Amino acid sequence: MAHLTLDAAYRLAFRALTAAGASEAMAASTAAALVRADAQGLTSHGLSRIPQYSAHLRNGRANGAAEPRIAKRREAVLLIDADGGLAFAACDMAIARGIEVARDMGVCFIGICNSHHCGVVVDHLRAVTEAGMVGLGFSNSPSAMPAAGGKHPVFGTNPIAAAFPRRSAQPLLIDMSLSEVARGKLMVAATAGQPIPQGWALDEHGQPTTDPQAGMDGSMLPIGAASSAKGAMLALVVELLVTALIGSHFGFEASSFFVDEGNVPHLGQSFILIDPGALAGSESYLDRVEVLIEEMLRDDGVRLPGARRLELEAAAQTGGINIPDALAQQINNMLA
Amino acid sequence: MAHLTLDAAYRLAFRALTAAGASEAMAASTAAALVRADAQGLTSHGLSRIPQYSAHLRNGRANGAAEPRIAKRREAVLLIDADGGLAFAACDMAIARGIEVARDMGVCFIGICNSHHCGVVVDHLRAVTEAGMVGLGFSNSPSAMPAAGGKHPVFGTNPIAAAFPRRSAQPLLIDMSLSEVARGKLMVAATAGQPIPQGWALDEHGQPTTDPQAGMDGSMLPIGAASSAKGAMLALVVELLVTALIGSHFGFEASSFFVDEGNVPHLGQSFILIDPGALAGSESYLDRVEVLIEEMLRDDGVRLPGARRLELEAAAQTGGINIPDALAQQINNMLA
Repeated sequence: MAHLTLDAAYRLAFRALTAAGASEAMAASTAAALVRADAQGLTSHGLSRIPQYSAHLRNGRANGAAEPRIAKRREAVLLIDADGGLAFAACDMAIARGIEVARDMGVCFIGICNSHHCGVVVDHLRAVTEAGMVGLGFSNSPSAMPAAGGKHPVFGTNPIAAAFPRRSAQPLLIDMSLSEVARGKLMVAATAGQPIPQGWALDEHGQPTTDPQAGMDGSMLPIGAASSAKGAMLALVVELLVTALIGSHFGFEASSFFVDEGNVPHLGQSFILIDPGALAGSESYLDRVEVLIEEMLRDDGVRLPGARRLELEAAAQTGGINIPDALAQQINNMLA
Repeated sequence: MAHLTLDAAYRLAFRALTAAGASEAMAASTAAALVRADAQGLTSHGLSRIPQYSAHLRNGRANGAAEPRIAKRREAVLLIDADGGLAFAACDMAIARGIEVARDMGVCFIGICNSHHCGVVVDHLRAVTEAGMVGLGFSNSPSAMPAAGGKHPVFGTNPIAAAFPRRSAQPLLIDMSLSEVARGKLMVAATAGQPIPQGWALDEHGQPTTDPQAGMDGSMLPIGAASSAKGAMLALVVELLVTALIGSHFGFEASSFFVDEGNVPHLGQSFILIDPGALAGSESYLDRVEVLIEEMLRDDGVRLPGARRLELEAAAQTGGINIPDALAQQINNMLA
């Protein structure tokens, strides 16, 4: 493994992204997000994405010269056009403006259209909690899961994120894809030549499978698919909130992120920011969150959502991160 | 079974609720919601609730004289105080005012505090779709599910609902509790003396159980609990959106709805109304929803969410509903 300080990792990511054609602003937002993911131990959303993002920039699947802008505004609603760029700069802009709007209006709904992969969704909500507000976030992704009762992939694994500020502690950070397991687990099993449990995936004919490669060629199953259609229905809700509602494309219309060639994805993100000051009041909100957390922690086995990744992130501030040698080599080759 | 037209069912419910102390406005909202639930085949949220609601009204757990009011307003946010009454009149007021606000502001977040059981959450969003808007709804309920990794019940089964209008068709209606199965399935199994599958519930010691009565004495498991904490994290998100944020009580602070005695629950609901006209534009939204539905329906096995209950409701308009003789007798006894 190659060891890097967070600063060094940021500079490496920034240089690689600008070398691939990203503007400095786009590279800065993206590099910061990737390093933060690695610092939290979320390596699938860290510097490992640089070869993919760079290929998309070089192949026109992402617009390196994109300039995100506010395409539409109605009082408490913002529509941001990401201009086909990597999503991070558009998300940063959306959240910064959204916080101002939510302060005035009590709530802000933000849609981001013409967008791309947005990384760790809940990380976009960090600034929201720093402003004392509650945030919800949604994104779609290239299709990977069937509709309820269906056999072919329609929805992405469509993450849902939520962040809740606390008075004298790190925020609660909730972030989940809606598949029973992350697609990365199939990739890991395929690489290791191991089978996967029933209930994780369907093959390309829509039949249950324990073969990870067959699952990757078919579709992932939504959470709880063994008992109900609830996970698939949640995926539908997320899909509509980030596509038809805001003018983005459906997951089934986008080429996979995991290939270099393909179309411009035009995917979407939506965020909802809510100011507790407009409802229960900020002090009451903060008091009551602690009451709930105390009740949760009565059981020894309970860990608060986000706690582990926040601990790892704090440790990485001084300890840095490790990335695989092959990845470091690959990125350095891109800079040669 | 006793057969009733919808009008007759409404009159029966209205009379029973006013006899138990509900104001005419409260009884009207509540009766309409209960009849609509029965018409859709959702009998657990239909007239079967009348004995429970009536007992709560008589025992002071619900305030029959409640007058819901707007307790707070900031631009795009409304806080409704349900005044301790049955939830339906407060929800009706909240949605009616929320539609006006969302029309002006693009989005409206509505919290309802000092509330009670709100029935079929998505039914409150019907009016939202009739206004051409997208709606999300959330409620908590007395604690029934553990936190992730926990053993004792902290969260209710905390439903999530969403409704999306279509151009020339009934809306998509999504409504789910966050337990792997509905608590009613344990009651049915207990009555029938049958075991339940692993993964549905924990006993009172926090251990997995196949005994439905042990499960009812313990806690329900959230969706997908076999693989991940995702369902439990969603329950946490819903809990915070309807409690700390808006000034309502936690599910673990409320006595069960299924006992006559107990405290005033002070539970909460939250709704988010979004006008597509402020984002993609209403025509574009409506066009694109049909594109997604066409893609979903390419698989024979797919049914649209809400389709079955809407078909049943349409049939009940002319065919009426059936309620168990014992329930009809029980309600008539309340009126004697």
